[in-house]
Amino acid sequence: MDNREIDSCIEKNNVEIKEDTPMPKAYVSSAVIKRLPRYFRYLRELIRNGKMRISSSELSKIMKVSASQIRQDLNCFGGFGQQGYGYNVKYLYAKISEILGVNCNFRAIIVGAGNLGRALVRNPMFTKRGVYTVAMFDIDTRIVGNTVAGVSVHPLDELEDFCQRNFIDIAVLTLPKESAQEITERLVKAGVCGIWNYTGKELDIPNKDVKIVNVHLGDSLMTLCYELNQMRNSDRKKEKSKDN
Amino acid sequence: MDNREIDSCIEKNNVEIKEDTPMPKAYVSSAVIKRLPRYFRYLRELIRNGKMRISSSELSKIMKVSASQIRQDLNCFGGFGQQGYGYNVKYLYAKISEILGVNCNFRAIIVGAGNLGRALVRNPMFTKRGVYTVAMFDIDTRIVGNTVAGVSVHPLDELEDFCQRNFIDIAVLTLPKESAQEITERLVKAGVCGIWNYTGKELDIPNKDVKIVNVHLGDSLMTLCYELNQMRNSDRKKEKSKDN
Repeated sequence: MDNREIDSCIEKNNVEIKEDTPMPKAYVSSAVIKRLPRYFRYLRELIRNGKMRISSSELSKIMKVSASQIRQDLNCFGGFGQQGYGYNVKYLYAKISEILGVNCNFRAIIVGAGNLGRALVRNPMFTKRGVYTVAMFDIDTRIVGNTVAGVSVHPLDELEDFCQRNFIDIAVLTLPKESAQEITERLVKAGVCGIWNYTGKELDIPNKDVKIVNVHLGDSLMTLCYELNQMRNSDRKKEKSKDN
Repeated sequence: MDNREIDSCIEKNNVEIKEDTPMPKAYVSSAVIKRLPRYFRYLRELIRNGKMRISSSELSKIMKVSASQIRQDLNCFGGFGQQGYGYNVKYLYAKISEILGVNCNFRAIIVGAGNLGRALVRNPMFTKRGVYTVAMFDIDTRIVGNTVAGVSVHPLDELEDFCQRNFIDIAVLTLPKESAQEITERLVKAGVCGIWNYTGKELDIPNKDVKIVNVHLGDSLMTLCYELNQMRNSDRKKEKSKDN
């Protein structure tokens, strides 16, 4: 199944996501919420492979987390699993998608059409998550007017007008750090309420109705360096103890 | 101060990082380790702005975490702060850099010279963290032989030979998902022990001496969608309660 088929399979299914489906009544902790995108990815892969039913122990093996963790996480949304049957993969996928806001059809723009912006606009993660990238913006007149993966690059001075007329929800910031704060203020004035920030600049927006998620790729690189360093240190210790 | 100056300032400083500096004796939880890259970023910014001393309450305001959290985190490494003086910013930066393996001079290659690979190779985060990108690899003969930000693109069939001769520690995977497992196996055989994986493919490498850190950008996008969805739902509830 390709992405479109998975999406249409979810839509056609009797577990279709209705706009007015009530949200889970139980309190869902932020720790669980953080783990949901990972379930989303694995369940999507299962649907793609035609697997429609799965037990918590099978899911546990694939996802490399304990079966009890899975049961605990998924029970937050009220008994998706049935004893002796396991989980209905499509239902679970639809439910998690609903909680995460996957089928909200958010509309996004990418500000900064450099390599990162161009890599992101080509990435299928947006449509997989129900986010539609409708335009890119750049200050460079050599790029403005081009089309990348079917999305056209507009000049920065059309930013406010475009966002207002096209009801843009999300702006992806892949522009230089130096302009990040100013552009964000312009975006917020134009009604954008979600900022996905790759610039490394900590944005200062006092408006509580604007959500900012920062991506610090360097933090992830440091996690890797930390692990490699730990390994080196333990190798050194072993060598030293051999020498003594 | 530019990046090179910050780095040389750390090197010249009396708090230079010696290879044999002992690691902290106290147990440092993985939760603290995960927070360290953020301290690293903020401290770097403070040094750049010439701020050499900071109290936990000042740091707390900038980083938007409680001062007691900061004291707890930093006490793990054994009393960096002094009452009435605060923290020595350079010392703290050097210590955190050491723990995270920043000055290990890891050598990296990027496999996949598409937009994402080209965006990453230009990103200063590598050198800021003491990781040197020495080559890129691609299968596309139109790209092979090019130079991006001073780094040349090699053909994929030179992969093993290059990694062995150049003692490569880290491979950044920005190639299509489909080739990720095969390429990783080749890299591991050639002695690469750190994989920074952007492909979205869950890699299966049973060798415990190989560390893999996955970057799932889509998970971060979902966090934003979740927050926007929560906001929409609460707005809807408010509207409904007005109507009733």
